[in-house]
Amino acid sequence: MQNCRVPREREIKTNKILVLMSDFGLSERFVADMKGVALQVDAALTIHDLTHIVEPFNIWEAAHTLAGTVAFWPQGTVFIAVVDPGVGTERKSVVARTGTGHFLVTPDNGTLTLVADQLGISGLREIDESVNRRPGSEVAHTFHGRDVYVFTGARLAAGVISFKQVGPKLEQPIVKLRYQKAELSNDVIAGSIVKIEKPFGNIVTNISLELAAKFGFAAEEKMPVHVEIGKASETVLRLEPAYVNSFGHVAEGQPLLYADSNGMLGLAVNSGDFSGKYGVKAGAGWSVKILKK
Amino acid sequence: MQNCRVPREREIKTNKILVLMSDFGLSERFVADMKGVALQVDAALTIHDLTHIVEPFNIWEAAHTLAGTVAFWPQGTVFIAVVDPGVGTERKSVVARTGTGHFLVTPDNGTLTLVADQLGISGLREIDESVNRRPGSEVAHTFHGRDVYVFTGARLAAGVISFKQVGPKLEQPIVKLRYQKAELSNDVIAGSIVKIEKPFGNIVTNISLELAAKFGFAAEEKMPVHVEIGKASETVLRLEPAYVNSFGHVAEGQPLLYADSNGMLGLAVNSGDFSGKYGVKAGAGWSVKILKK
Amino acid sequence: MQNCRVPREREIKTNKILVLMSDFGLSERFVADMKGVALQVDAALTIHDLTHIVEPFNIWEAAHTLAGTVAFWPQGTVFIAVVDPGVGTERKSVVARTGTGHFLVTPDNGTLTLVADQLGISGLREIDESVNRRPGSEVAHTFHGRDVYVFTGARLAAGVISFKQVGPKLEQPIVKLRYQKAELSNDVIAGSIVKIEKPFGNIVTNISLELAAKFGFAAEEKMPVHVEIGKASETVLRLEPAYVNSFGHVAEGQPLLYADSNGMLGLAVNSGDFSGKYGVKAGAGWSVKILKK
Repeated sequence: MQNCRVPREREIKTNKILVLMSDFGLSERFVADMKGVALQVDAALTIHDLTHIVEPFNIWEAAHTLAGTVAFWPQGTVFIAVVDPGVGTERKSVVARTGTGHFLVTPDNGTLTLVADQLGISGLREIDESVNRRPGSEVAHTFHGRDVYVFTGARLAAGVISFKQVGPKLEQPIVKLRYQKAELSNDVIAGSIVKIEKPFGNIVTNISLELAAKFGFAAEEKMPVHVEIGKASETVLRLEPAYVNSFGHVAEGQPLLYADSNGMLGLAVNSGDFSGKYGVKAGAGWSVKILKK
Repeated sequence: MQNCRVPREREIKTNKILVLMSDFGLSERFVADMKGVALQVDAALTIHDLTHIVEPFNIWEAAHTLAGTVAFWPQGTVFIAVVDPGVGTERKSVVARTGTGHFLVTPDNGTLTLVADQLGISGLREIDESVNRRPGSEVAHTFHGRDVYVFTGARLAAGVISFKQVGPKLEQPIVKLRYQKAELSNDVIAGSIVKIEKPFGNIVTNISLELAAKFGFAAEEKMPVHVEIGKASETVLRLEPAYVNSFGHVAEGQPLLYADSNGMLGLAVNSGDFSGKYGVKAGAGWSVKILKK
Repeated sequence: MQNCRVPREREIKTNKILVLMSDFGLSERFVADMKGVALQVDAALTIHDLTHIVEPFNIWEAAHTLAGTVAFWPQGTVFIAVVDPGVGTERKSVVARTGTGHFLVTPDNGTLTLVADQLGISGLREIDESVNRRPGSEVAHTFHGRDVYVFTGARLAAGVISFKQVGPKLEQPIVKLRYQKAELSNDVIAGSIVKIEKPFGNIVTNISLELAAKFGFAAEEKMPVHVEIGKASETVLRLEPAYVNSFGHVAEGQPLLYADSNGMLGLAVNSGDFSGKYGVKAGAGWSVKILKK
């Protein structure tokens, strides 16, 4: 008997690995509740933390932290990302499948902005809470991280449900935060400060090494560059760090421009705290310009 | 041949899952020592953290954090709870089996207070340190968490010992902390502030939703209520928050009364810090009264 | 057929357990990146944290934290220790095998100082980055923790490579930090303050219980002793704590000298913070003398 079944689009298999991110902190029982619920779904799940010290309600920081790490995990890993100031309101609860074959369970509130831009989203489904909600949890309205997101993510990671069984397909675009993308003109690269890396106080920009290379930068030559940092329309800092491969190439306490481990330009002080020393922060109003000297 | 054995009381099986709680913090090697010792007992154990950032020596906080999470974990999970200001003195070291089929390894110093009241204790045994103590550890008098509690808990979780083999059965009641239980009268519900949830600064009361429902509360109607917060015998704060399902139902910066994820009434500020804004803390002297407006 | 193979030196087998230490903190994605890369090598690895809250760039603290915990873990456990102010410069990347049968993957920058003195090093190999470096990572110069150390450690822990396949054997001694060793004379034991234990503020000295016993100390008798703490050449504190088995043996708020869980003499305040109360810190200039009263 001949098998005439048309081959389906390749199905990404989950791998029993769950990774959790939230702004719940580490001193309460919230993260533990989530892990317990996941293990009730399947005690063989492997659970890791991305971080739970996202600044409370800071979706922008969550978006960056998530987008940076996803591709380092095995294909099929399921991420639960719960920074959810709108919990209990009308925002959708979704599972996205990335172009890299990872799954993200999250409120659709902007958390997926940079994952979408950097990895692509190849599938998006709204969680059907009539099926994918922890039994007995209907009375509690404020802990969707445990009762909806980790419950659904654990079922997906364990193979109890498929991606399709998460709920109906969503066709409309995801909610995205607005941010300044990096731009190259003749004399300058402009970009934004996406975050301050704790605990070191390094500045992370959204300017990629590829863009820097097009501009003619070459870290190996330890070339000096001109950097301007702006807040709103005002330039608040001008400095001329060396563009080097690593912290140790400049003296202690000196600033440097470098290629960070995520392929982006960064600013740091060797054995010090750039953000603290120069009073520079991250956020919508902060920009960075890099000019050849 | 007929099996005449009388059926025993159902034995709860442990499940190779260990959950650790302490006030050791995360910057020292103490928690790692405990995990290493557990894996020396059985490398197949799965180990998770509840939290290690309990305020040092604060048994009351430990009791709340522990009681809130236990039932979310699979039956047979073994918890190690070490907030132990009396280490090395005469307090007993025990393993309790809860009514929900979980095991708690802890000093008998009040840590079990709320587990006992909320889940019930169906068995209690004193750890026999002549058997259940890490070999070679007799010289160190100050780290029972590693040398007695996690060693015993790991052996129990791994099935090396049964609950009976922990040590002799204890008949006397556990040590309990005194606290104000929630009370309903005609015009008011009185209760206590059991803790401040970090990092958000939400107030957790000991007033259950069931009690609130008997009082005639209905969050769905967004009804305003009158709240008085007292310190000792003095009323230090009066406010009229809406009683709503979730943070997003009031404007940013506004207070709300809500049903928290543990089935208790809570007070919060949408996208803010109730404790910080109003100067309200948790502890024995702090009380809360809720009146219909 | 006779087996004539000469028996080799006993080969220590790794056990699929990885333990991570760094100064990366817990709020960024760095630790998660490392775990993801390890699981890409082998999804069956068990990964635990020692701590990631080492004071940034503080190799001395890393050396103490690491040396204290290693022996509590199963033989064959692989530790990744990344406190690496010299990242990208000429320091060597090594894997050391301890006398206790554990493996340590780290920059050779002093992190191994106390492991070498306390556990011994039975083998040392330099990581051959032409083989043991994450494919595709050559462009990033600043995250050896992920791209070299955890990648190599995961391959070693998983059995993908043997200890020999790490890279060439190193014959020269490891880099060691200089520190004051504990010394006993007729009337006094002198030593140094190796660290302050957070969160309690206890003082950890480098004076072992064996040395204290030779001096004639006996904690069981609750004997009073005379302690002098010096900064540089000046004595900044004199006090007479009781030498007792545990915190609870003195009144709340009172100082005590005790045997800590690592077999060293420590100073603490019962239910308090010795370091904060007396203004004593750790570091090269701080010393402690203990005299019989």
